[in-house]
Amino acid sequence: MTERKRKIVNDPVYGFITIDHPLIFKLISHPYYQRLRRIHQMALAQTVYPGAMHTRFHHSLGAYHLMSCALSELKGKGIHITPEEELAAKMAILLHDVGHGPYSHALEHSIVEGVSHEEISRMLMEALNKEMDGALTLTIEIFNGIYHKKFLHQLVSSQLDVDRLDYLNRDSFFTGVSEGVIGYDRIIKMLTVHHGELMVEEKGIYSIEKFIVSRRLMYWQVYLHKTVLSAENMLVKVLSRAKHLAQAGQEVFCSPPCIISSTTW
Amino acid sequence: MTERKRKIVNDPVYGFITIDHPLIFKLISHPYYQRLRRIHQMALAQTVYPGAMHTRFHHSLGAYHLMSCALSELKGKGIHITPEEELAAKMAILLHDVGHGPYSHALEHSIVEGVSHEEISRMLMEALNKEMDGALTLTIEIFNGIYHKKFLHQLVSSQLDVDRLDYLNRDSFFTGVSEGVIGYDRIIKMLTVHHGELMVEEKGIYSIEKFIVSRRLMYWQVYLHKTVLSAENMLVKVLSRAKHLAQAGQEVFCSPPCIISSTTW
Amino acid sequence: MTERKRKIVNDPVYGFITIDHPLIFKLISHPYYQRLRRIHQMALAQTVYPGAMHTRFHHSLGAYHLMSCALSELKGKGIHITPEEELAAKMAILLHDVGHGPYSHALEHSIVEGVSHEEISRMLMEALNKEMDGALTLTIEIFNGIYHKKFLHQLVSSQLDVDRLDYLNRDSFFTGVSEGVIGYDRIIKMLTVHHGELMVEEKGIYSIEKFIVSRRLMYWQVYLHKTVLSAENMLVKVLSRAKHLAQAGQEVFCSPPCIISSTTW
Amino acid sequence: MTERKRKIVNDPVYGFITIDHPLIFKLISHPYYQRLRRIHQMALAQTVYPGAMHTRFHHSLGAYHLMSCALSELKGKGIHITPEEELAAKMAILLHDVGHGPYSHALEHSIVEGVSHEEISRMLMEALNKEMDGALTLTIEIFNGIYHKKFLHQLVSSQLDVDRLDYLNRDSFFTGVSEGVIGYDRIIKMLTVHHGELMVEEKGIYSIEKFIVSRRLMYWQVYLHKTVLSAENMLVKVLSRAKHLAQAGQEVFCSPPCIISSTTW
Repeated sequence: MTERKRKIVNDPVYGFITIDHPLIFKLISHPYYQRLRRIHQMALAQTVYPGAMHTRFHHSLGAYHLMSCALSELKGKGIHITPEEELAAKMAILLHDVGHGPYSHALEHSIVEGVSHEEISRMLMEALNKEMDGALTLTIEIFNGIYHKKFLHQLVSSQLDVDRLDYLNRDSFFTGVSEGVIGYDRIIKMLTVHHGELMVEEKGIYSIEKFIVSRRLMYWQVYLHKTVLSAENMLVKVLSRAKHLAQAGQEVFCSPPCIISSTTW
Repeated sequence: MTERKRKIVNDPVYGFITIDHPLIFKLISHPYYQRLRRIHQMALAQTVYPGAMHTRFHHSLGAYHLMSCALSELKGKGIHITPEEELAAKMAILLHDVGHGPYSHALEHSIVEGVSHEEISRMLMEALNKEMDGALTLTIEIFNGIYHKKFLHQLVSSQLDVDRLDYLNRDSFFTGVSEGVIGYDRIIKMLTVHHGELMVEEKGIYSIEKFIVSRRLMYWQVYLHKTVLSAENMLVKVLSRAKHLAQAGQEVFCSPPCIISSTTW
Repeated sequence: MTERKRKIVNDPVYGFITIDHPLIFKLISHPYYQRLRRIHQMALAQTVYPGAMHTRFHHSLGAYHLMSCALSELKGKGIHITPEEELAAKMAILLHDVGHGPYSHALEHSIVEGVSHEEISRMLMEALNKEMDGALTLTIEIFNGIYHKKFLHQLVSSQLDVDRLDYLNRDSFFTGVSEGVIGYDRIIKMLTVHHGELMVEEKGIYSIEKFIVSRRLMYWQVYLHKTVLSAENMLVKVLSRAKHLAQAGQEVFCSPPCIISSTTW
Repeated sequence: MTERKRKIVNDPVYGFITIDHPLIFKLISHPYYQRLRRIHQMALAQTVYPGAMHTRFHHSLGAYHLMSCALSELKGKGIHITPEEELAAKMAILLHDVGHGPYSHALEHSIVEGVSHEEISRMLMEALNKEMDGALTLTIEIFNGIYHKKFLHQLVSSQLDVDRLDYLNRDSFFTGVSEGVIGYDRIIKMLTVHHGELMVEEKGIYSIEKFIVSRRLMYWQVYLHKTVLSAENMLVKVLSRAKHLAQAGQEVFCSPPCIISSTTW
């Protein structure tokens, strides 16, 4: 793949997502990233919302798209961003969820106790950085919030980062719950940088208010839906019991029939 | 037109609107209703939102569609509604805005002082009722809130009537302001009747909350936009001045050149 | 669940799907139908279109919704349809894909040779009918095309059935390929019955032409996409090889590690 | 307005349209362009499609937006386009319809015979160029197709120009006729330049086919709808008669009452 090669991905939420740098393409092709294809963004929400089958692979691509839009908007407003910073910020958001396992919240309360998915993301980024001869060094600095241009980290992780903008938007889209629809494009057009920090222009205030209300409504109506929570809790119990049995040296039945010994954990 | 004849109208907001009763068809064809084709729903909002060109003709058709949906939903839940009541409620919402003039709010503060558009709607309904040999008697009772099944009036005019559901939805659609998008279909599915009054099922509470917030945001961002208000205020001043001059017996210039004497008012 | 109980399901494609009969609810709750939650509608298309994660569970619900709309439209046009026929037709479309396995086309060319998914659907319907004391007898007659009102079968399976209307529409929605968008609501409004056969009103001709062109474009651009076909072909080869090895009595490795003997097939 | 000032306009079709150059802002503010606010894009189509109230003001803004996207896409592919050429091409598309009168087709067959709206557009551009001290010289060269980089003219006017992309898309949106929906974003992503001419990448072929079919269907279903054509023809007859009477020196009645003498024409 040469510098010029461009790839576009169909996305029902934004239309098209453009991949126009070989490093981005390399990251997406990597097994660590491809693994996210098999991890549902909304875990067990599909028990109630049958459309909620989208994956973390898809969400991360969407957040990457919004990062591209946001950076291009900021540059249009005269904020200085170098090509290296742009690339690094895009890779940081692409990898922000790379440490997620299946049913992350259930897993973190049963089998993988004491290790957050953020830490695993960080470890995987370090591993990738080694493999790519340091190409992710700036990416990791931005991800960890130690790079001097704070707003780049804030785009990746803050109260108003592109992660949230994408998941609220995408989760609304795939569940069909219009209560969560947000004016993500308006919010992005309203972003600016002041004293190195990410800010929103004054006239974007209603979009922000709408964003906060939408987020709240999505929690009430979708993320904390009683059936979804029950399913998740049931899974936590199942996994804890399996862990307990396996640690006690007992065989654990699963389908297709397989043998899991305590050493597998 | 026989009883069986059905007409469908393309509506970008709801897809299709079905007209399946000759009286509905007759009302829509009447010059009083057709007049609404030339009255913009959002008056001068198009100065800021170029898409906001939709008319009261279109809005009233949309509200009629939502009334059809709401009544069909309520009947599905076992609420007793006779075919006559259904027809009358549909005609009431179809005519609820028939008394609107162009730039209603500006007009009511300048030229047509002391007569609200609701009163004019009422007068036009009475005139139509005479013309149609009393076919609108029940319609007018529902519109005026004196019919014993209160919920029918509440569907036409209350805090949660189909008028508001349509205009919030339609104004959001045509302005492109996503802040006003509401879950109108969910709200309609959640409607019920208790002791003769229109109610919302408990689990519809978030949709209602979203509806109220959206309405507020639409006021802040669109209806009370400073440029829209300025344009409206300027029009009030222009009309007041014209009225003053005309009453003083002076010729008022307008384009195309025409003579308006004080007796025209 | 009493007769009155209504359930609504959020669907990003149609907004809401209403379930208003206890038998429909019973069918959807049955493990045979719930199994479809784990079968992707578009198999390996998600390798190219990351949004294409929707399931046959979801598609069948969507086709059921369109069936409800179509029957209600036909009744509105004066076509005689009894409540029993309506229920049976809805159950027929709900179950039309119940015999699908994962990656059906790949499976049918490797492991499950000589048995089509239609036959399996039929067998499962018969099993369900026994379990439900004959409640599906009319459903099966309609599905098999032996009921005298031909148009009911044609709604389930013909050149213009609600199955195709839903999958074209849904596949376009989830892939984000606008080339496949069809005017399904207009087509449904144009359906009629003539001499017992399903027909389309003359003025619906452009919608039908669009439907046929969209279908073709979806095949070219999505269903027969070279990467999708390659992935499917690779899977056929993998499964054939596994079958061969298993039949030869060899252990087949899979993840998580498990033992599959030839008797499992 | 300084160089940095950016304005965004809400557009229900594309979300937001950004205006980021003072000359673009100046053109849009000019009375010649503002006049388009009062000219409906689809003339009398609103008799059948009540949503079709959008204006040439709105369409031209939309085409300008697509031009911005197309140029940015081409630059991303390494096509050399100078900032001056970019600005000139954007202004050319913004002004491409500036010569349209109300009900253009009806007018051109009755009152304004022998002068096409293209010629009037050209004349207005020349007038604006004088007023703006030659700032539109390159714009006019591109518009007239005499500039050496042919593809810039082809983006403004050819079988696949941004004018058509916008009006098909916008007319579908506002009429609610899904038959006209086109994959405009995919088409734009597929544009390229070869030997100075605008081309489409091979894999965009289905989007182009869909575009051509959609265009045909829009003509059949909307633009040439029998009621729309009848209304237009009636208007042509009315205007011809009025012209005849006025030329014969007779008074022509119109509402509000006004006097039109033959010298007014």
